[in-house]
Amino acid sequence: MAARDRAGIYLETIPVEEAVAKVAAALDKEALLKSETIDSRHAAGRVTAAPVTAVLSSPNVHCAAMDGIAVVARSTFSAREGRPLTLVKGQDFVPVNTGHALPREPLRTDAVIMVEHVRFDDEGNAHIETPAYPWQHVRRMGEDIIATDMLLPHNHRITPYDVGALLAAGVWEVEVWERPSVYIVPTGDEVLEAASRPRPGPGQVVESNSYVLSALAEQAGCAVRRAVPVKDDPEAIRAEAAKGLEQGSHAVIICAGSSAGTKDYTRSVFDSLGTVLVHGVSAMPGKPALLGVADEKSPRPGALLAGAPGYPVSAAVVMEEIILPLLMDIGRMERTIRPEVPVTLARRSPSKPGLVEYLRLSVGRVGGRYVGMPLSRGAGNITSLSKAQAVTRIPMDSEGVEAGELVTAELLVTRSMLDRILLVIGSHDATLDLLADALMGGEAGVRLASSHVGSLGGLQALKAGNAHLAGCHLLDPESGDFNFPFLARYAPELECTVYNLAIRHQGLMVAPGNPLGIQGVNDLARDDVRFVNRQRGAGTRILLDYELAKANIEAATVNGYGKEEVTHTAVALNVATGEADCGLGIMAAAKALGLDFVPLARERYDLIIPELDLSDLRVQALLEMITKPEIKAAIEAQGGYETSLTGQRMRPGMGLKLG
Amino acid sequence: MAARDRAGIYLETIPVEEAVAKVAAALDKEALLKSETIDSRHAAGRVTAAPVTAVLSSPNVHCAAMDGIAVVARSTFSAREGRPLTLVKGQDFVPVNTGHALPREPLRTDAVIMVEHVRFDDEGNAHIETPAYPWQHVRRMGEDIIATDMLLPHNHRITPYDVGALLAAGVWEVEVWERPSVYIVPTGDEVLEAASRPRPGPGQVVESNSYVLSALAEQAGCAVRRAVPVKDDPEAIRAEAAKGLEQGSHAVIICAGSSAGTKDYTRSVFDSLGTVLVHGVSAMPGKPALLGVADEKSPRPGALLAGAPGYPVSAAVVMEEIILPLLMDIGRMERTIRPEVPVTLARRSPSKPGLVEYLRLSVGRVGGRYVGMPLSRGAGNITSLSKAQAVTRIPMDSEGVEAGELVTAELLVTRSMLDRILLVIGSHDATLDLLADALMGGEAGVRLASSHVGSLGGLQALKAGNAHLAGCHLLDPESGDFNFPFLARYAPELECTVYNLAIRHQGLMVAPGNPLGIQGVNDLARDDVRFVNRQRGAGTRILLDYELAKANIEAATVNGYGKEEVTHTAVALNVATGEADCGLGIMAAAKALGLDFVPLARERYDLIIPELDLSDLRVQALLEMITKPEIKAAIEAQGGYETSLTGQRMRPGMGLKLG
Repeated sequence: MAARDRAGIYLETIPVEEAVAKVAAALDKEALLKSETIDSRHAAGRVTAAPVTAVLSSPNVHCAAMDGIAVVARSTFSAREGRPLTLVKGQDFVPVNTGHALPREPLRTDAVIMVEHVRFDDEGNAHIETPAYPWQHVRRMGEDIIATDMLLPHNHRITPYDVGALLAAGVWEVEVWERPSVYIVPTGDEVLEAASRPRPGPGQVVESNSYVLSALAEQAGCAVRRAVPVKDDPEAIRAEAAKGLEQGSHAVIICAGSSAGTKDYTRSVFDSLGTVLVHGVSAMPGKPALLGVADEKSPRPGALLAGAPGYPVSAAVVMEEIILPLLMDIGRMERTIRPEVPVTLARRSPSKPGLVEYLRLSVGRVGGRYVGMPLSRGAGNITSLSKAQAVTRIPMDSEGVEAGELVTAELLVTRSMLDRILLVIGSHDATLDLLADALMGGEAGVRLASSHVGSLGGLQALKAGNAHLAGCHLLDPESGDFNFPFLARYAPELECTVYNLAIRHQGLMVAPGNPLGIQGVNDLARDDVRFVNRQRGAGTRILLDYELAKANIEAATVNGYGKEEVTHTAVALNVATGEADCGLGIMAAAKALGLDFVPLARERYDLIIPELDLSDLRVQALLEMITKPEIKAAIEAQGGYETSLTGQRMRPGMGLKLG
Repeated sequence: MAARDRAGIYLETIPVEEAVAKVAAALDKEALLKSETIDSRHAAGRVTAAPVTAVLSSPNVHCAAMDGIAVVARSTFSAREGRPLTLVKGQDFVPVNTGHALPREPLRTDAVIMVEHVRFDDEGNAHIETPAYPWQHVRRMGEDIIATDMLLPHNHRITPYDVGALLAAGVWEVEVWERPSVYIVPTGDEVLEAASRPRPGPGQVVESNSYVLSALAEQAGCAVRRAVPVKDDPEAIRAEAAKGLEQGSHAVIICAGSSAGTKDYTRSVFDSLGTVLVHGVSAMPGKPALLGVADEKSPRPGALLAGAPGYPVSAAVVMEEIILPLLMDIGRMERTIRPEVPVTLARRSPSKPGLVEYLRLSVGRVGGRYVGMPLSRGAGNITSLSKAQAVTRIPMDSEGVEAGELVTAELLVTRSMLDRILLVIGSHDATLDLLADALMGGEAGVRLASSHVGSLGGLQALKAGNAHLAGCHLLDPESGDFNFPFLARYAPELECTVYNLAIRHQGLMVAPGNPLGIQGVNDLARDDVRFVNRQRGAGTRILLDYELAKANIEAATVNGYGKEEVTHTAVALNVATGEADCGLGIMAAAKALGLDFVPLARERYDLIIPELDLSDLRVQALLEMITKPEIKAAIEAQGGYETSLTGQRMRPGMGLKLG
């Protein structure tokens, strides 16, 4: 469907598969990639450009496969157990070692008897009790390779074992395809060059996409060069792309500027270098993908021209789904097909119909199934790329996926990696990161994957069997107890055990020096105090409401009560940047961002573990880890944590005291 | 079980898993591998040595996620469709582009309205018909990364996406583990250095294992150095190993000499450098694996010492199953776990109890199942390594596997590669290699895998559903017809179609110049003529018997009738090297090895295709390929082939004529 955009350029979105097929059909691989001759010893990973024929035979003669004596088999037929046959030294046998050519003159030997089965007497004659059969323990000539045999067809990616065959067959050089060479050009007025180790100002970003795409291309077997970032100037961008082609690249990838906004120039640059075949794919993220083939207007007709969107996740999707498959085709390499697994979604994720959504998931194996938590869908969030273990496609006609729904997802990590993942869902705490790091050093290399949905969300996840454990710190105002009252109310049928991870200090985070002189919740009712809250369901929000109620303060009088952030550190960041004056959170978050802290309450942060998962070795590894003195010390060192209850089993009614 | 060997050194064979665990437990990774700090931009593939914490937040302020106008959400609440709200230029909104910091002074904006949803009037005021919600189209500060967050734990292998996260978070350098460094030392009096491009004499081999192991280690992420081959001299070998350790390698692999024979020195070398922990594993091939850890007698205490057997397949098994996992452990990298698939065996393979046999298979997907042909079990046969798509383990207590048995096999290639394989079983012909090469260049990249079991074996394989097609050239002496009479007799229930691949010229292959003046089968009865035959079930053998019967010659009078080879080229090689004077085979084989040829008969070499497979796209690709003029020309160019019937459907009774 064509739609006239702001800059007046037509955009037609087509499905990803169609886009790849369209461009693949337009590429002339033979004209684009040349072959080269390289030393076979270093050819592993390269792709043959012509069939390879053996020059030598291997073995090149019949030879001994064992250490022993070479004999004429026929002459040994009378040997029997208990009635040994004597073979005369110098006449009936010839001693041989493994690999020796079988003697043919004067004795035309055709079998080998292992030295272990021969008894020599003092004259050096050999005595045997079993006849040898023809070709016994002999490697026949040509048994492995015969000269003129075809060893490898063309378009075959050479394995390390193929290298062995090439050398054994006397093929010292092989003709292989050049590696596809890619020139990556980052663009943008606002991007900063990582090499200069910049300190970004407001709204500025460090250019990173080009390095991500470079690494992806290199891992796939391409030769990669990266340009210094080019400003949003169509002439300059064109010149840089042309330079890359002139210097021999088979493909140019321009990062950012691929949409159709007033400052998007990739389209016009490609129009001036060749023919644009695709501009817009029905994928999200990744829609503004741009692809074309260079022509005589450029220094290298036939080269692939690709425009990757500026947002990191969009660029990743376009690279994985479109650009890399095309580069693999050019290089005669196999396109990567990722293994698929069924995944139960732990949370719903709405989707826009009309586009195929590439939804990244954090995945672990809980019980007998794979459970996935959708990661942030913001196309600018790089961490959703680094945190994902899988990606699922939500079809074009779908409005989303529901919690509990089974989807097919492509794995971005190995299955054995998935099996090492411990899924923690609930309220996040930096201690989980500390544990995640500690667990990586253990025997089993357990990897913690945590999703932040708040304490109540954690309980829901456990009820649905979607996590191994949940981090919770829910205070019940009536009883003063933690977590158990909520388990009784929201998950009464869930059989679980509760272990304490730490006692945390909660309080009001304020700017360094506490310029507004905030002393407690009473100050939240002041007009000049801008508060920032946590999301509904968060233990910290429940604590706030409790404290407000205790102080008889209406939520409506708190300026900013409706402004929500989802983690302690996000709240702290708001205060640190002056977005807000104050927020409720843990001391560790305040300390991390250099804020002052007005203590308010202490609370228990527990790990809720379903009975089913208690015996899981990974859970056991974690529970064992938190009893170690060095781990407790590290927890306390964060500031605002007490470890008097850490690693101990909690029971209803214990509150903040040992049972 | 200890057994006293020839050199007086005790050998105890232990299971592979136990061997790996024993050595893994003895390695002190922390002491052995140091960390280093590298530029994050090039860190993909490296393993973190310490947890990584974000320095910058990203975004570092609230910023616009779209091009449009920044507004104060609360002030837009009255906008309605049909009742537009006017926002005054310079007062109620600020134009923004994607990525810009959200203006906070003087207007404290907190939402963005997309430019597509704004109508500007001539005065530059904005008219909107939908209210904006707080944080609409805004990327919140810290939404992706918050300074002080843990980005990556230690012992994490950095992905290309992690590189993006590192740069966005201002982490310019990362502390990573050194790459495990391996020093590979080939040994042996009889090996020739590939770099010198040698012409091996009888019994001499080109040293290739060290290059295979080097490539395997490099692909796994190790840094590799290779020594020049060292003669079988324990002092020299020790000195070379010590040199490698002195120069910084974390592991030394000595190729060959790991057994306990008189010329095996690796054991004593390792005893002089450290402690030998494993000498002998219950694997076949691979039994004489040798492993130890260096101590103060060496330049690098704690280093891994590994002895790989001399036979290529043995060395491969030891490398894959033992050495690589240990190197991965040292480098804190994930051990490779290969995907497993169920495979039906097309042929029985006996096995020695007491050892786990690593049997390599050629595998393809036929019908709904994976079918595997065991490859040659000779430990010296490199091509069984390069031809294998999978490897299965035959347990210690098993005496082998039967035809039709279902085993679990580990894939050495991808599943999609398996799906592109066309399995041909039967009588081999070099034309199949020609087709294999041609098919690789086609759209679908079909890969032909052929197994040589002779014509009758091919029919059996089709009956069992173990191949897509069979190559056959069976002459029925009575009718003079090819293949159909045998189908009727041996596979009457098999519904199949027969296509001709070529008419071949069979005859007697003799030394250049035909020194013995062989004119025909009558000469085979001469005492001075040494014949070499083909195996039972081979079409060529059936032809021989027919010709002998026609000439009234008894098989017993043919000197060498009982000597069997399994391919035309193996027969030709025997004649070429003087092992035999004469053999029956196709002209192409004679021509390839420079022999003279005495024509005897013409025969049809057909492809038998079960009905079930006829519609398979891969089979169709092959049938289409053989109708092409350039393919026919290439077939004829081999010499001794006629293509008058090539690609045409054969019917009973056609003989050598068109129907």
